[in-house]
Amino acid sequence: MERHFEKDLNELKERLLWMGSLAERSVHQAVHAVLQSDEQLAQRVLEEESAINELQIEIDDRVVHLLALHQLMAVDLRFVLAVSRINNDLERIGDQAVNIAQSAQRILRHPRVKPYVDLPKMSEAVEEMVRDALNAVVRRDVALAQKVLARDDQVDGLRDQIFRELLTYMMGDSSVVYPAFELILVAKNLERIGDHATNISEDVIYIVQGRDVRHPAVDRR
Amino acid sequence: MERHFEKDLNELKERLLWMGSLAERSVHQAVHAVLQSDEQLAQRVLEEESAINELQIEIDDRVVHLLALHQLMAVDLRFVLAVSRINNDLERIGDQAVNIAQSAQRILRHPRVKPYVDLPKMSEAVEEMVRDALNAVVRRDVALAQKVLARDDQVDGLRDQIFRELLTYMMGDSSVVYPAFELILVAKNLERIGDHATNISEDVIYIVQGRDVRHPAVDRR
Repeated sequence: MERHFEKDLNELKERLLWMGSLAERSVHQAVHAVLQSDEQLAQRVLEEESAINELQIEIDDRVVHLLALHQLMAVDLRFVLAVSRINNDLERIGDQAVNIAQSAQRILRHPRVKPYVDLPKMSEAVEEMVRDALNAVVRRDVALAQKVLARDDQVDGLRDQIFRELLTYMMGDSSVVYPAFELILVAKNLERIGDHATNISEDVIYIVQGRDVRHPAVDRR
Repeated sequence: MERHFEKDLNELKERLLWMGSLAERSVHQAVHAVLQSDEQLAQRVLEEESAINELQIEIDDRVVHLLALHQLMAVDLRFVLAVSRINNDLERIGDQAVNIAQSAQRILRHPRVKPYVDLPKMSEAVEEMVRDALNAVVRRDVALAQKVLARDDQVDGLRDQIFRELLTYMMGDSSVVYPAFELILVAKNLERIGDHATNISEDVIYIVQGRDVRHPAVDRR
């Protein structure tokens, strides 16, 4: 029962975007569980993880079926392989949201270390990276993908600033070592989410331009 | 110019294993740069990164060419897609080795926090996970892949122990906060390497048994 390639491909894209929106929402909720000390929001992230995991498996199955039913040109193969990689990145973004939600639950047991200033900035930047990366996939928008890559440096800068500030707090007051350490883990998780958005954007450039930007220093064959 | 499928597939496997051995060596060298305060070893890891990056691109190209030249059965498609994912995991193991090497360079500027006890244990366990995961790929050995999955819990336990101990040091002596923090980052990097070895092992089980073990709680369709 041969089905039309375009139809299969469009369905695949739709499911990938749906997965992207779930992952995006998980990150948003997890970060706000930390920032607003919201235990219920943290719980919701944990409950919604399985939907993302099910979608990952469904999308992988769709990729296998699509490749089994259709003999694709190299350009379409690259796209489908990129979808398979993006699928993985989105699932891991979901994992990181779960880690943040679990940190939120532990942080709630301690008094607040200090007013959060850089953490909201970093999380806004990371959430925008994820949103832009997904939009870049839909629109095959290389300029937007490149904006995501540029943003990653800013996110790493914010991460370093958060680390420095929290370490300074830890040196000044040993009672904040545990909750400050949890906030460091949250910043590490946000960094990883930014890395995944970067991977997705590199895949967009790979799809559209047919060139690999993952390792610019590499002498391409 | 159609080439024989088996030949292409074997070449692909060989290149993947070569990449695996490079990634494995990078991890080993980076960890020993930390443990033995060896600046030169850290430098070598940074220099060898580009070989891994080049191989990643080469293997991705081979995957595209293989799929473009041959119409594969679902079982072979699953294998080739798994190779593409394992390729990604190996490259990221290389990235983590680079992070550890850079931490080694920063740690060298400080006096040693304490004799390293759990860090060598954790790094040995993680290196064994990577080695076993690669052997499981070669031999399509599900039992070995499952051993890797079981090992990951032990690695997470060692990580928690390292965190607890370093945080206790930080609380007792504020002058060790910076080098202790670098060691925490090294343990985080080792944890991620273990996660990648776990992903590879899950792919082995997926290849051999045709079932997905990534999310055991998920109700499979």
